[in-house]
Amino acid sequence: MKPGITVITLGVKDFKRSLNFYKNGLGWPTKATETDSIAFFELNGTRLALYPKDDLAKDANIPAGGSGFSGITLSHNVSSESEVDSLIVDLRRIGAKIVVEPHRTSWGGYGAYFSDPDGYLWEVVYNPGWKIDKDGLVKFP
Amino acid sequence: MKPGITVITLGVKDFKRSLNFYKNGLGWPTKATETDSIAFFELNGTRLALYPKDDLAKDANIPAGGSGFSGITLSHNVSSESEVDSLIVDLRRIGAKIVVEPHRTSWGGYGAYFSDPDGYLWEVVYNPGWKIDKDGLVKFP
Repeated sequence: MKPGITVITLGVKDFKRSLNFYKNGLGWPTKATETDSIAFFELNGTRLALYPKDDLAKDANIPAGGSGFSGITLSHNVSSESEVDSLIVDLRRIGAKIVVEPHRTSWGGYGAYFSDPDGYLWEVVYNPGWKIDKDGLVKFP
Repeated sequence: MKPGITVITLGVKDFKRSLNFYKNGLGWPTKATETDSIAFFELNGTRLALYPKDDLAKDANIPAGGSGFSGITLSHNVSSESEVDSLIVDLRRIGAKIVVEPHRTSWGGYGAYFSDPDGYLWEVVYNPGWKIDKDGLVKFP
């Protein structure tokens, strides 16, 4: 199995609300199919999809019920501390819930967390040891 | 906020077990820091990280408890139906739990699901309408 994730799909409770957050709030471009129940975002690297949580559970043949921490976080690395700060200002303005304010991390980075309308967690972070390439992907040392 | 996810972090219960699954089972290369409690995988596109679930929850300032469906799935698109079949054979051999056997999907694709040691769901899928580029990423039509 080649090392790679092609799509990450977030199972959402209210499709229109989530689509509005990512498409109009964050301003991310949808591509390919965008219907009343599925949207694909054209991102650098792994693509993002939104799909109703119940339908996603059905596809995977598991019960849709679930509560508490999903166990998964998504990171958005940037190139400086000030970029973290300014993104958090923007995110607060569009109504994202800031769950951890920008702060220096234990490992020498600088980051913050916000949550999307379903409570999925996103880290906005600067790691001084990593470069961001022209495609917006991280270059490990 | 530029459209992109740099890292997907899976919060895991037993770090060594999960590291073994991804590194030795799937054969995916770790890069950057790999310690007793964090590993980064050098993937095409968005990178993957493993980190203890309790620590991840603490970083995000939320309770670590959670149960049932995480609400998130990760996809691994391939270029043919036979590639889905052969990957599932490989995955079964390394002890991955196949939760949905390869089958034709409602939208004209062909796919299957497996779960990792923490129950995180992966879709192995062929979408005849999408191309896979040289970097292993999907090209939307």
